[in-house]
Amino acid sequence: MKFNNRNVFISSKARIGENVKIGDNTIIYDNVIIGDNTIIANDCIIGEPGNDYYFNDDYKNPETHIGKNSMIRSHTIIYSDSVFGNFFSTGHRVTIREKSVFGNNCRIGTLSDIQGHVTFGQYCWLHSNVHIGQKSEIGNFVFIYPYVVFTNDPHPPSNICNGPKIGDFSQVAVGTVVLPGVKIGKHCLLGAQSLIGRDVEDYQLVAGNPAKVLKDVRELVSKETGKSHYPWPDNFERGMPWENIGFEKWKKENGYEND
Amino acid sequence: MKFNNRNVFISSKARIGENVKIGDNTIIYDNVIIGDNTIIANDCIIGEPGNDYYFNDDYKNPETHIGKNSMIRSHTIIYSDSVFGNFFSTGHRVTIREKSVFGNNCRIGTLSDIQGHVTFGQYCWLHSNVHIGQKSEIGNFVFIYPYVVFTNDPHPPSNICNGPKIGDFSQVAVGTVVLPGVKIGKHCLLGAQSLIGRDVEDYQLVAGNPAKVLKDVRELVSKETGKSHYPWPDNFERGMPWENIGFEKWKKENGYEND
Amino acid sequence: MKFNNRNVFISSKARIGENVKIGDNTIIYDNVIIGDNTIIANDCIIGEPGNDYYFNDDYKNPETHIGKNSMIRSHTIIYSDSVFGNFFSTGHRVTIREKSVFGNNCRIGTLSDIQGHVTFGQYCWLHSNVHIGQKSEIGNFVFIYPYVVFTNDPHPPSNICNGPKIGDFSQVAVGTVVLPGVKIGKHCLLGAQSLIGRDVEDYQLVAGNPAKVLKDVRELVSKETGKSHYPWPDNFERGMPWENIGFEKWKKENGYEND
Repeated sequence: MKFNNRNVFISSKARIGENVKIGDNTIIYDNVIIGDNTIIANDCIIGEPGNDYYFNDDYKNPETHIGKNSMIRSHTIIYSDSVFGNFFSTGHRVTIREKSVFGNNCRIGTLSDIQGHVTFGQYCWLHSNVHIGQKSEIGNFVFIYPYVVFTNDPHPPSNICNGPKIGDFSQVAVGTVVLPGVKIGKHCLLGAQSLIGRDVEDYQLVAGNPAKVLKDVRELVSKETGKSHYPWPDNFERGMPWENIGFEKWKKENGYEND
Repeated sequence: MKFNNRNVFISSKARIGENVKIGDNTIIYDNVIIGDNTIIANDCIIGEPGNDYYFNDDYKNPETHIGKNSMIRSHTIIYSDSVFGNFFSTGHRVTIREKSVFGNNCRIGTLSDIQGHVTFGQYCWLHSNVHIGQKSEIGNFVFIYPYVVFTNDPHPPSNICNGPKIGDFSQVAVGTVVLPGVKIGKHCLLGAQSLIGRDVEDYQLVAGNPAKVLKDVRELVSKETGKSHYPWPDNFERGMPWENIGFEKWKKENGYEND
Repeated sequence: MKFNNRNVFISSKARIGENVKIGDNTIIYDNVIIGDNTIIANDCIIGEPGNDYYFNDDYKNPETHIGKNSMIRSHTIIYSDSVFGNFFSTGHRVTIREKSVFGNNCRIGTLSDIQGHVTFGQYCWLHSNVHIGQKSEIGNFVFIYPYVVFTNDPHPPSNICNGPKIGDFSQVAVGTVVLPGVKIGKHCLLGAQSLIGRDVEDYQLVAGNPAKVLKDVRELVSKETGKSHYPWPDNFERGMPWENIGFEKWKKENGYEND
């Protein structure tokens, strides 16, 4: 009973790759370009037009690029005018607005809300219910956990829009708010349920409301192993490009020598 | 490919204004009244019946009024027995339960969950993923940011239901919880990620977990301008009725002399 | 206009009980078993297959059991391979992943996200927008309020998955994060907007970020009544099996003598 094209609508101006599968009740709008082997599940809206669509008969939908081998789960809404790399995946009910740019191998969890005008590097994994405000800039291998919010207005309401910047390999734990314009270095760990209002240097653990620098992540001792888990790429490989190679070898061969 | 009436169901007992547009897969139940020029996008449920509908063949759906020039974005669910003013808008996947009353020019962001039995004045702007518990009373020009929760049960679980009251022009920043029955004055700023357990007088900045009064908002100094941004209507006009007029002139002409 | 079977798809391998009603645009996948008198509203996906379904033609969908007299509200997604007791209910847009086990009379609020591999006892009531991570174990009569998150990875990202355990009758207030592996006793009250990082003994009130033990819940004094509301079953009966009987009598007859 899969991919029966029941109540599916695909614009004649969409370009659909080889071996793409599209679920029931899904709508693909004009100028959506979908790479080979991608799966779009049920009840999705891909290439949702901007507001002008509803008021202007001359509206032309900008292009939306979804990479190869991607998996868009049901009830996801993706606006037009965004670019997603290969091996992109979403959970259910994800909303992604215009001018979002994602590198390869990114994952966005159920209910996450990407407000548009954002950039993500490669291998960013967002868990469920993450909210990324406009003008956020996220590096590579950044993982963001449920109910994290990235903000951008220092004096609400104002006309300033200044999102956070997050360095490669940093982790943002559950329920944490990152305030406008805050810059987070590489390999940081932002603790759960924190309020992050100041810039954070590389390799720092910060936590609390308001957050304070607690220590270098390399000094954290795991109860389970008796040594530090961080830098985490030394101890976590599943789904990462250094799987079965090791981070040390991989990083030298891939331009991350200094990480 | 817009408004093709694919898989649309509109009750014969609904009253649809002039120039209303309704998207694919949307259902309009009995006794929904939609004002002129309103757009209802795809996959919406408008006038969702109460629980009795499923069990009682004599169920009569209460009226639902949606004002003129409104925009209901896709996947929104609005229960019957609510009233929305003109120029109302929702983001995606908004849920609004029965006996909600909204003035003109209100906006409700993606994923927000309005539990019903609430009142909002005019020009209330709710960002994404706001949760408003029953019996909340919100004034005019109140802006509420993502992941804010308004609660109503002081001793969970109990039979007491006592929501917060929020005065005109107040701002509730991201991730903040307002506890049951708390009264917030006019022109207040409730800081991000706070827990608000006590009443707050007009013009106060409160923040923290638990929240404390920090200062008068008029004493806050903006990094960008070197002076206070508050009262914000003096410095923010976009979409407001004082746009191109100025707040000082507008308020004298519109009954807000004391604000 | 209810239950017209408009755009409904039910697998021939599903087993649907007597007097079951299914709303528009709903999909029921293979090997879903639905008890008598249950209502599935519009736009639901029941028995959503696991990831292999999309890649393996030999995929066989595991069984999904939904009990009698249940109510699944619109836009709910329930994966296959879970078991729900009788009188189960969901709000709108609930997502429940595989290997979730719920006892009788459980309720899951709008937007809640159950990540799978979890167990719930009977009469657990989850309000809106609750996130339950994998490997959580929840007892009986546990109520969880909006924006609560249960986590399971102590050193993100790692391969450890160790969810919280919550004892019977405990209450988790709004916006609270429970950290991995934390054990909460019976009849506890976890205060709003808290970060719970340590085990909690029976009958304790804990709150704050980080949370501290504040007092025995039986010593809390209600403003409304001048005495403690806790243990709450002595003061709250609506929908509970001790309604019109009283908790004291009921617990002796039902194996909760020590509660």
